[in-house]
Amino acid sequence: MCEANAYVIKDGQEEIYLESVDILRPEGNQIYLRNIFGEQKVFKGKIKEMSLLNHKIILEEER
Amino acid sequence: MCEANAYVIKDGQEEIYLESVDILRPEGNQIYLRNIFGEQKVFKGKIKEMSLLNHKIILEEER
Repeated sequence: MCEANAYVIKDGQEEIYLESVDILRPEGNQIYLRNIFGEQKVFKGKIKEMSLLNHKIILEEER
Repeated sequence: MCEANAYVIKDGQEEIYLESVDILRPEGNQIYLRNIFGEQKVFKGKIKEMSLLNHKIILEEER
């Protein structure tokens, strides 16, 4: 399936934030994420980059 | 494959902006997009919502 894993960069390392993300909705300085299991999270920060073929969403915390 | 089509909402309708997008990189008030054919575009606006399972990226023009 075509969901993607969301990662946050911490100390230069990609740390998993939420697996199997389906829905992404930026809302001001936050991002609403929901995965295929119905788990929901709101991330304080922005999307740094997405690579859909690699199933990767890189998130960057608000500074 | 797991790329997605990017659409822009014009007069309430979803209009195709770029097909088969792989890379998305928000840059300030613009978004860099590249698809699996190497075509590149820079959109003036933001991501409204993404549904990866539906292979859909909805973009919203800057007001």
